[in-house]
Amino acid sequence: MWADVYDVFGAGLSMEQWVTVIDETYDGRRSDVIAHVDRRAKTEFDAIFLGGGSAGRFGASVVRSLGGRALVIDRWPFLGGSCPHQACVPHHLFSEAARELDQARALAGRLWYPSFDPGASSILELVDLFRAKRSGPHAHMNWQSAEQLGIEYLLNAPAMVIDAHTVEAAGERYRTRNLVLGTGSRARRLGIEGEDLAGVFDYASLIEDLDYEPQRIVVIGGSKVAVEYGSFFRSMGCPTTIVSRSAVLSSGSPGRMDDDLRDYVVTGMRQRDLSILEDSTVQRIVGDTRVRGVDVVTPDGERHLEADFVLVGAGEVPNTESFDPALDLARDPLGWILVDEQMRTSLPGVYAVGDLVGPPMEMFKSRRSGATAARNIMGLETRLDVSDYPDFLHTTYEVSWAGLGERQARERLRSVVTIQVPPPELSPHETPLPMAEGSMIYGFTMPERTGFQKCVIDAESRRVVGIHHAGHGAKNAFSYLHHLMTRPEGFTIDELGNLNELYISPEYFIGYARLRSSQADLAGM
Amino acid sequence: MWADVYDVFGAGLSMEQWVTVIDETYDGRRSDVIAHVDRRAKTEFDAIFLGGGSAGRFGASVVRSLGGRALVIDRWPFLGGSCPHQACVPHHLFSEAARELDQARALAGRLWYPSFDPGASSILELVDLFRAKRSGPHAHMNWQSAEQLGIEYLLNAPAMVIDAHTVEAAGERYRTRNLVLGTGSRARRLGIEGEDLAGVFDYASLIEDLDYEPQRIVVIGGSKVAVEYGSFFRSMGCPTTIVSRSAVLSSGSPGRMDDDLRDYVVTGMRQRDLSILEDSTVQRIVGDTRVRGVDVVTPDGERHLEADFVLVGAGEVPNTESFDPALDLARDPLGWILVDEQMRTSLPGVYAVGDLVGPPMEMFKSRRSGATAARNIMGLETRLDVSDYPDFLHTTYEVSWAGLGERQARERLRSVVTIQVPPPELSPHETPLPMAEGSMIYGFTMPERTGFQKCVIDAESRRVVGIHHAGHGAKNAFSYLHHLMTRPEGFTIDELGNLNELYISPEYFIGYARLRSSQADLAGM
Repeated sequence: MWADVYDVFGAGLSMEQWVTVIDETYDGRRSDVIAHVDRRAKTEFDAIFLGGGSAGRFGASVVRSLGGRALVIDRWPFLGGSCPHQACVPHHLFSEAARELDQARALAGRLWYPSFDPGASSILELVDLFRAKRSGPHAHMNWQSAEQLGIEYLLNAPAMVIDAHTVEAAGERYRTRNLVLGTGSRARRLGIEGEDLAGVFDYASLIEDLDYEPQRIVVIGGSKVAVEYGSFFRSMGCPTTIVSRSAVLSSGSPGRMDDDLRDYVVTGMRQRDLSILEDSTVQRIVGDTRVRGVDVVTPDGERHLEADFVLVGAGEVPNTESFDPALDLARDPLGWILVDEQMRTSLPGVYAVGDLVGPPMEMFKSRRSGATAARNIMGLETRLDVSDYPDFLHTTYEVSWAGLGERQARERLRSVVTIQVPPPELSPHETPLPMAEGSMIYGFTMPERTGFQKCVIDAESRRVVGIHHAGHGAKNAFSYLHHLMTRPEGFTIDELGNLNELYISPEYFIGYARLRSSQADLAGM
Repeated sequence: MWADVYDVFGAGLSMEQWVTVIDETYDGRRSDVIAHVDRRAKTEFDAIFLGGGSAGRFGASVVRSLGGRALVIDRWPFLGGSCPHQACVPHHLFSEAARELDQARALAGRLWYPSFDPGASSILELVDLFRAKRSGPHAHMNWQSAEQLGIEYLLNAPAMVIDAHTVEAAGERYRTRNLVLGTGSRARRLGIEGEDLAGVFDYASLIEDLDYEPQRIVVIGGSKVAVEYGSFFRSMGCPTTIVSRSAVLSSGSPGRMDDDLRDYVVTGMRQRDLSILEDSTVQRIVGDTRVRGVDVVTPDGERHLEADFVLVGAGEVPNTESFDPALDLARDPLGWILVDEQMRTSLPGVYAVGDLVGPPMEMFKSRRSGATAARNIMGLETRLDVSDYPDFLHTTYEVSWAGLGERQARERLRSVVTIQVPPPELSPHETPLPMAEGSMIYGFTMPERTGFQKCVIDAESRRVVGIHHAGHGAKNAFSYLHHLMTRPEGFTIDELGNLNELYISPEYFIGYARLRSSQADLAGM
């Protein structure tokens, strides 16, 4: 069927075997296509998923669950896409390191915490650890997709779309009833002088190419990626400046954060000596062969920032190379593939999913868009609305939010009350709240570090309309709280107060809602 | 109105002032009653709450929210009861210490983690830290109750019930339409030889009386308290043995844990050299003036365990002294006050709430029982059912569960499927899952430490019937998941798979449910 092929169908590779195959393929020791395809099957493909990231993998699983046949094709030797390879997984590892180092530094010399050695942490070492071990999660994706989900796939197989029903990969042409494009995105280039110098990275090339220890860092951007990586670099002990064209965390979903939450988060970054230049533009990156610094225009005039490492976190652009010549797809002004709520593009039988359709570049959207395309392909009309969703980021805290901030709620509603922890009347320094999992030791040593949270309530309908948290341990609840808030009937403070909290629940919303839930005229607290 | 009274009504005490008042009263430097009572009010009390723990405090807030008048009376100089003083709050601090020390020991010498100094951690130092700072949370309770909730209270005021409508406290008699008893519970004594020796503690006397560093510990009991404190002592470096009459975590709500979850948890404790003797009974505690050890009957014969510290965690008994002579209340065989679902005792106008009515001794029940009594008193018929609730404990992990374990589900249902992470086919040592907040670094260094989870589903109704987790960061979601599961219409795997997860969500249920949700015939994974 194929020339150079490693046929793994029915082979039941172990995790250990998968790690070996992935490592050897990724570093070039083997070049054959990895094929998990049922050669006996005569049925046509209901869908080919071009790109085996989360969107394609979830979509293929759903096609199969519904009795259809799907093929996933990816250029990498593993499924899962950029998330476990260069994006979300390393980011989460780095953010946990930021939290750990921040705590080790803050508590040094107290209790059992040893004195803090600022020379002990190494960005390069942590990147090396991730690179050395990332094929574990990769292997799990391949194993699970074959053994538990029965997904057919071709890996290490660069592909080219011929037409809406034909894909060429590994020297073969594959026909399909429907084509689902899920080729993802990559970091946007700034288009400024010096961008190609050694020492200029984006989140992907940082993982692939870093081979020295950064000493002085500039991060360009003001959104989640910039804030998260900036906080990580600073926590590792590296002098770091974030240069943002507007206020940090003011656009995209972070723009829906409550103002007090944003203040808490940004103040916390500055208190940790993370330098933040807002309303500032990088004019050029300066260096000879390697980066030596950046020239910035700030509201206070021009400045030169020395740097031996620059991270560009200025957004994303779609990966369209594998289908761009063949398919004439409608796009939005930024280049993202236009789709409707069924994930259908402008061409019949062609769907697009995941990062390729633009923001939000989040896992829930990627996975759900793949599943939505699959269900529509299999005849179950299904729509996906991603205009409202719970969101989060990491600094040295978990920061989670959903719905409206207090100001946004007051602009829309006649009567708004809030539950805020610590309460606005009290100084965070004398209030060890919200204290729970992950902030207990802070509560008894540095109360101002326990976090901040706010619940925003429409006093007329009694509905919870916004939830906001910085701290630890609360993030996971936000998926469920948001689900409850966005039901047609909403979720009232009275229903919230009737839940059974697992004390000490990291967000204090349930208990505090109960204290208020019997009030006819709701008051804040 | 009163003889020696510190009238704080309208005084608007700051947190700092509250800390001073509480500290001075608690250590005997001042003895006056702390009165936050509206002297101008002429209205009768709708309820007196005897005991200002969470049940009384929440109840009084609800009475006031509904336009009534309530008075809380407590012997301690603060509201909140035993939780912030001796029970849940120190336990959470100790459990976080256990998690931190376990990680510091496991990762010592890797990345930035220094070599581990087993002599650096001190049980006494951590108890001292808690004792020195616990009046902060106490002060917050007094402040919030006065300034935000408008609760009237008498503190540092031992009280005696005269009849169902009369309470005497601080030399005065108070009349009330209804009486709500919320005097809590204390540790049960074993009734064995040697129990009064110095060095024998329960969770409360540990906080009040510890004045030396334990060197060798025996914990008596097999339920949550025993497991939690045993894990803490062991993580602090102290050789520790748990002696349990039956299998640990086999009774009460922990008995509803999934078998695999329990195995994971208990195996993890043993791997950390926490010694566990099951089906074993302590015959006597041995010593002269101080404890020197315990004699135990095990399935393998009699053993003597050396110990200079014994913690008795053998359950609770109700505090009935302040009303026992006056009120002839029906009780259950263990002595707990019998109440119906409206929290009414056998005497008209007398309610009982909180720990006083018996298990579960959990915060949600305490708070909700107080609020339920209050609503019924104020004419809003309200019932509380605590037969099913989400639960958790700490070892060096967070362990959370709700609903049915797999075995229990298979006993009741015709067709059960499970989603398990890591999957049963794979070794935890090669599977860095479930990896998320709090387990990212483990994922890349010690995959077997990332945790364990299982979701149990009724394949016929497609409903989620059980959720089980050991790890980090998932606990907070269980309140909401349990709420969804126990709605009359239930919560199906399809609805679960439709939520917007905050990736990487510490429990993998949403994403994994999505991979399965389109299947007509559900399969496990």
